[in-house]
Amino acid sequence: MSTLKLHEDRFFDSDSAIRNAARELFEAVKNCPIISPHGHVDPSIFVENKPFPNPTELFISPDHYVFRMLYSQGISLEELDIPQRNGKRLGIDSRKVWQIFAENYFLFAGTPSGVWLNYEFIKVFGIEEKLNGNNAQKIYDLINDKLQSEEYLPRNLFKKLNIELLTTTDSATDNLEFHKKIKDSGWDGRVIPCFRPDAVTNLLNPTWKDDIYELGKLTSLEITNYKIFITALEKRREYFKANGATSTDHGVISPLTHKLSERESEEIFSKALSGKVSVKDAELFTANMLMEMARMSCEDGLTMQIHAGSNRNHNNIIFEKYGLDKGCDIPQQTEYTNNLKELLNAYGNNPNFTVIVFTLDETNYSRELAPLAGHYPAMKLGPAWWFHDSIEGMTRYRHSVTETAGFYNTVGFNDDTRAFVSIPARHDVARRVDANFLGGLIAKHIIDLEEGKKIIKDLTYNLVKKAYKL
Amino acid sequence: MSTLKLHEDRFFDSDSAIRNAARELFEAVKNCPIISPHGHVDPSIFVENKPFPNPTELFISPDHYVFRMLYSQGISLEELDIPQRNGKRLGIDSRKVWQIFAENYFLFAGTPSGVWLNYEFIKVFGIEEKLNGNNAQKIYDLINDKLQSEEYLPRNLFKKLNIELLTTTDSATDNLEFHKKIKDSGWDGRVIPCFRPDAVTNLLNPTWKDDIYELGKLTSLEITNYKIFITALEKRREYFKANGATSTDHGVISPLTHKLSERESEEIFSKALSGKVSVKDAELFTANMLMEMARMSCEDGLTMQIHAGSNRNHNNIIFEKYGLDKGCDIPQQTEYTNNLKELLNAYGNNPNFTVIVFTLDETNYSRELAPLAGHYPAMKLGPAWWFHDSIEGMTRYRHSVTETAGFYNTVGFNDDTRAFVSIPARHDVARRVDANFLGGLIAKHIIDLEEGKKIIKDLTYNLVKKAYKL
Amino acid sequence: MSTLKLHEDRFFDSDSAIRNAARELFEAVKNCPIISPHGHVDPSIFVENKPFPNPTELFISPDHYVFRMLYSQGISLEELDIPQRNGKRLGIDSRKVWQIFAENYFLFAGTPSGVWLNYEFIKVFGIEEKLNGNNAQKIYDLINDKLQSEEYLPRNLFKKLNIELLTTTDSATDNLEFHKKIKDSGWDGRVIPCFRPDAVTNLLNPTWKDDIYELGKLTSLEITNYKIFITALEKRREYFKANGATSTDHGVISPLTHKLSERESEEIFSKALSGKVSVKDAELFTANMLMEMARMSCEDGLTMQIHAGSNRNHNNIIFEKYGLDKGCDIPQQTEYTNNLKELLNAYGNNPNFTVIVFTLDETNYSRELAPLAGHYPAMKLGPAWWFHDSIEGMTRYRHSVTETAGFYNTVGFNDDTRAFVSIPARHDVARRVDANFLGGLIAKHIIDLEEGKKIIKDLTYNLVKKAYKL
Repeated sequence: MSTLKLHEDRFFDSDSAIRNAARELFEAVKNCPIISPHGHVDPSIFVENKPFPNPTELFISPDHYVFRMLYSQGISLEELDIPQRNGKRLGIDSRKVWQIFAENYFLFAGTPSGVWLNYEFIKVFGIEEKLNGNNAQKIYDLINDKLQSEEYLPRNLFKKLNIELLTTTDSATDNLEFHKKIKDSGWDGRVIPCFRPDAVTNLLNPTWKDDIYELGKLTSLEITNYKIFITALEKRREYFKANGATSTDHGVISPLTHKLSERESEEIFSKALSGKVSVKDAELFTANMLMEMARMSCEDGLTMQIHAGSNRNHNNIIFEKYGLDKGCDIPQQTEYTNNLKELLNAYGNNPNFTVIVFTLDETNYSRELAPLAGHYPAMKLGPAWWFHDSIEGMTRYRHSVTETAGFYNTVGFNDDTRAFVSIPARHDVARRVDANFLGGLIAKHIIDLEEGKKIIKDLTYNLVKKAYKL
Repeated sequence: MSTLKLHEDRFFDSDSAIRNAARELFEAVKNCPIISPHGHVDPSIFVENKPFPNPTELFISPDHYVFRMLYSQGISLEELDIPQRNGKRLGIDSRKVWQIFAENYFLFAGTPSGVWLNYEFIKVFGIEEKLNGNNAQKIYDLINDKLQSEEYLPRNLFKKLNIELLTTTDSATDNLEFHKKIKDSGWDGRVIPCFRPDAVTNLLNPTWKDDIYELGKLTSLEITNYKIFITALEKRREYFKANGATSTDHGVISPLTHKLSERESEEIFSKALSGKVSVKDAELFTANMLMEMARMSCEDGLTMQIHAGSNRNHNNIIFEKYGLDKGCDIPQQTEYTNNLKELLNAYGNNPNFTVIVFTLDETNYSRELAPLAGHYPAMKLGPAWWFHDSIEGMTRYRHSVTETAGFYNTVGFNDDTRAFVSIPARHDVARRVDANFLGGLIAKHIIDLEEGKKIIKDLTYNLVKKAYKL
Repeated sequence: MSTLKLHEDRFFDSDSAIRNAARELFEAVKNCPIISPHGHVDPSIFVENKPFPNPTELFISPDHYVFRMLYSQGISLEELDIPQRNGKRLGIDSRKVWQIFAENYFLFAGTPSGVWLNYEFIKVFGIEEKLNGNNAQKIYDLINDKLQSEEYLPRNLFKKLNIELLTTTDSATDNLEFHKKIKDSGWDGRVIPCFRPDAVTNLLNPTWKDDIYELGKLTSLEITNYKIFITALEKRREYFKANGATSTDHGVISPLTHKLSERESEEIFSKALSGKVSVKDAELFTANMLMEMARMSCEDGLTMQIHAGSNRNHNNIIFEKYGLDKGCDIPQQTEYTNNLKELLNAYGNNPNFTVIVFTLDETNYSRELAPLAGHYPAMKLGPAWWFHDSIEGMTRYRHSVTETAGFYNTVGFNDDTRAFVSIPARHDVARRVDANFLGGLIAKHIIDLEEGKKIIKDLTYNLVKKAYKL
């Protein structure tokens, strides 16, 4: 048996000057409550508050970080019984899937998934052995038993995991019933929505017309033209805001921003309604919608987030059978300096506006994003995202952006996860990486310990609340 | 009160093997006189030799590195009384501006501006406290008193700061009167010009026709066609060389190089004279002018510098009111392998030619620039530039280029600054970063101490003099 | 005299926690036999088994890594007597060339060539002094004497260097006579070919028609159309496989993949036969051939390698006189996410297919290649290539790809060299860099020593054999 341990100095440089400083800084924030201003946890779990079914359904089936790695090594999604597009499951025994996972657990060495899972196993479930083929079923039982206990019901976990606030991500046509029910239930966990209208702003979305129809229904508008469409969006933003939202989110392949004339907008919208929109039209429309969303943010004060550069559903075979979010979204080169120019010129100097920009293309950190955030008052830099939400990724982020943007044009950490139990693991990593980065600056006498202590607290808590207006 | 200190081991890794080697290497060059082969100090200050007006006018108003950071955090340029395009000032009390700066000094933690300012405060002005809102006025007084003393007059500072040679950057239509006056004055400080003809080679420059007129006047030529234009430039280069210049400089958004035929050049030039030039024409013309400048360098021996990739004046609101160089120049993706091909094929094998290439796009270091500099005898790699003239930036530079280009295809350090008093601070950082990088190679037994000592001296002094023919 | 030493901890971080772990991991693989699955050693040397002529012909004349650095510092290829395109040599005394090399040996400080040469001098030839102008001739003699001895004949060196398997790279029209002779000779060194058909798949190859003629001759086919061309290639693959090949290799400037229709393929092929092919045609044809090669690999099981992004023969003057591979190939920006999409959609989920992708554009590591390899079961990530086959380059590679691709979607090390004697030096560096990287993970408590030991063995030996089906 190999012991599973979480070293108290994990992720800190072994050099003693750095490690000592990092320890002291981490100590100052390690018990700080978690603000999760952007993520994908399903809010219904806090309404129903039912036990998670079993370890496989908690750790494997919903987590594309985990099953993409298994898939890359030749294990089919069928063997793992990943839910298909139409909801179909093959009904493979969860213990069999867990066994495959356990036998291949060595694949996660050195990856963020490995780091998070180890934390969850030890800190949340009290496991003391490294998972492998031999102890797979024993560990399955250990976790499963806990999941069935009261302590591990979603609402109790929310407290146990030290979460102060959790933001979900919701489509423009979501009626926010779960958020309302949570509020109405009297439970004091704070779970708020975020307005993400991609399905209605991306004209290439295959279900666009249905979504527009739904948007009309929800706003009691017949959306026959662009102007009414804009009114509908404004009404939805108002509705989200009334239900606690403080932010919007926009997933785009390119961050091109460009205001179309009223005539152009109406023409493209009309083409879309009649099903004749071209790719070029759709790109311009998305660029235009980013401008509209920024304008609305100036008016209603919702913080705007732009997540750009993911080439979604790269593997058609998987997409056809399994649908979205199955580990086949691949980053591509992204350009911000020219693409964001129109938006930043129009709204980037507006004191009522905050736009947080994310990238999957790390070359932008020092070349484009830090210089932009280091100048425009409205623009802030989102934390290292997705593939870069990792020890190395966050470290590269701080090394690349700090000198030009400083610490105060960044906005703290996003866990951005669907995997609820991984939230404290991810914040633990983020806080440790920041402590270690600051520890490095202290060890090199670039800043002193007093400065480091102020900064780590701001990064962990204050900057998040400020940027997301919480 | 928090003490302001410069640790003697600052910027060195805390690991003792690296630090000990770095110390020994730094010791070998720390008192080496400063060669500043590229920068933007105003030469008139050495003619007039008047005291700098006050701390605000020395550290804030002219330094876009400083006020862009304040602006990014919502402090307006009006509040800081930055000089406007038309020279207008709002006349805000310098002490008020200094107070804002002091209250926000924490924003510079971990940035090069913070590092340089700390050095200047301590080493040049003897300040012993960290600047903050409470001690702002006291420190203002301390600095202000020194500025009024004889010791702090520009010529005396030149000596105090250990400067051996200072190169300015001057337009093609500069008559170099200040350089002449400095020489004629008998003062022994060496201040030389550098020929930067962007205003006449960039056809999109709004004042291009005025500048061409000026160029004609200075060369006693009526510039009615391209051929005469070229003759005028050759005459200006000759004039600059006669007045001490050893280099030229070219700021371009793209480093495209392409020789136009005589007919094409004449046609575009003629269109420009009649105010009908297109963006495409202007791009080709700039590409052609880089070829012409390289050809002239082969003939007159002036070292050519190419600074590419800055998207200037990205923020129109600021540009309209405040003009150039106000912290809104943003880097963009840049390509060198194909763009420099024509120039390097024509002149890159010429032993009389030296072209130093700079980038704001760090992806080019290992991918394009180090391989090019590691092959073409004429091409050398300029040091980490602008946003990358920093501890991390210079460290990334050495890590990225050394294995392919070696040390001897680089050219030492450029401070590239308008902020005269920051010159020794910047060279201090550069020398320390190089010492630390070499210390790392020694600690890893890649080179030995004897090799390191030769290299640090070459990087600090010998390679600069060679590349810039000083 | 300065002593030349190889420190036993070379290339390890000096921090003791990292160094101690790295030492222990390196110890586990340092004597592991060398698998060289991709390289450019001339197989004829093992047939003839004649002594290498002299130190200059061994270390300088054939090694473009070495002479490009000398060239970049103004030493002409004439002075170095590099073989010209037509085979012509100037006949300069080898000792004179060696003297120049020795006098400029300091240029290689901090470069991979320097690191490899030091290893070869000490470990293979027992030299104990740093090479310089003074001892140049003495060291020439020392090496030369050894080269004439039986111990240093190629076949004996193969054993002395601890090589288990060596793969060469061979054109589609190579008859593999040397590989056959090696086998027939009864010598037990394993030297196998790799099928690289670039000369016949790249329609812009100046000798394309001759190569097609040769291909027809070897396959007893008259290649008058595309279909027959494909048959010929299939026959050649079969022949290579029968002679030991387990892999193919494809050098392309862009990794664009796209299947042409039969009609399109025939049309372009027919244009090429009549000498009228356009650059655009040739690009599409190359894209199509990558699809064909992937299809064939699915059928015959040969592992496919794609080496993309080298802008070959950038310096025309050198190319005209000296031909290919003279140090003037320069990397350029490369895109994989969109370019490989068609190939990966068609074959990336196929369990019989392995495609190993290499890049010279390091920005692709974390952005495109690790995400692709971390999803598609057929795709693996080739090791750091060419300019990045270096201490820093391999370190950046592991730091950039591991978190997303893990260790098990990489394939171990390629020495990729023409310089036979440098093989053990290069593997020594690779093993040390991997040991140090893993040591860093251990020191940061991301993995433990037990995990590290399994991984270093897999990286050094098991993953190579698996990926290349050896």
